[in-house]
Amino acid sequence: MITLINTRRSVRRWTADGVSDPDIRDILEAAMNAPSAGNEQAWQFVVLRGTTVNDYVAINRNCPPGAPVGILVCGDLLAQKYDGYHLYDCCAAIQNILLAAHAKGLGAVWTAVFPTSVDAIHQLLGLPDYIVPVGFVPIGVPAGAPPAYVSRYDEAKVHDGKW
Amino acid sequence: MITLINTRRSVRRWTADGVSDPDIRDILEAAMNAPSAGNEQAWQFVVLRGTTVNDYVAINRNCPPGAPVGILVCGDLLAQKYDGYHLYDCCAAIQNILLAAHAKGLGAVWTAVFPTSVDAIHQLLGLPDYIVPVGFVPIGVPAGAPPAYVSRYDEAKVHDGKW
Repeated sequence: MITLINTRRSVRRWTADGVSDPDIRDILEAAMNAPSAGNEQAWQFVVLRGTTVNDYVAINRNCPPGAPVGILVCGDLLAQKYDGYHLYDCCAAIQNILLAAHAKGLGAVWTAVFPTSVDAIHQLLGLPDYIVPVGFVPIGVPAGAPPAYVSRYDEAKVHDGKW
Repeated sequence: MITLINTRRSVRRWTADGVSDPDIRDILEAAMNAPSAGNEQAWQFVVLRGTTVNDYVAINRNCPPGAPVGILVCGDLLAQKYDGYHLYDCCAAIQNILLAAHAKGLGAVWTAVFPTSVDAIHQLLGLPDYIVPVGFVPIGVPAGAPPAYVSRYDEAKVHDGKW
């Protein structure tokens, strides 16, 4: 498993193949088995497919177009127990999504939601006021070979016992 | 791998056994292979062992005592390219730490850093001003059997195409 963690890379180009509903369900299950603050599970997931993915990309253009599926991970302020911690919950869930996709041979990338896009995303998807889009993950079959594995381990960032 | 993601649980009690240096290094490597905003890798890691772990717990008491090792994951404001995104980077790294520990049969738990503890943590560990403690992960050999696996998958949190 650690090799799979280390070899995950951001994938931004996909083939025309789809992602099956069972695969999407497995990926969402991994997301919801992430830890959360006080087990608050302050997350919600909107699954976009086909042209809807590109409708999202037209609003939040840091996301590469062309994925057959995308998952918008949102914080749920009504479920949140601790101020601001929906963000931590959603980040843990997103990391599980990336790893679960990679484990299935799919490719994905974590894309940020621009603050300037939030209102338009709310309108596009009919999100309630208490829902905060945190990140969007397009997923598909990778087009082309992944980049060669180079670990990002950096000894200089490890401090033993104190700074 | 998805089974390992799903079966990870928070572990808060540990045996007296230590965690080997190679295991700690592998866990840190997994952490640093997390994605980050624009690949900024705005993270730093302080590894605490033995009594130093309890010195930390004495300051930030939501962390259970008694782990042989703990990793304080910190944001690095000098490395950060996008305002606030050190938090996302660190959350992704922490989730990888939890999963890598679980893959090794170790037990860990993500504990929050209280805002009221930050100054004291800076003093204890000699952290520079540009370093922001984000989360602390105590790690050790689990004491007792893990809780039975119950998936947290919740169909009600999945929205198809729109809310």
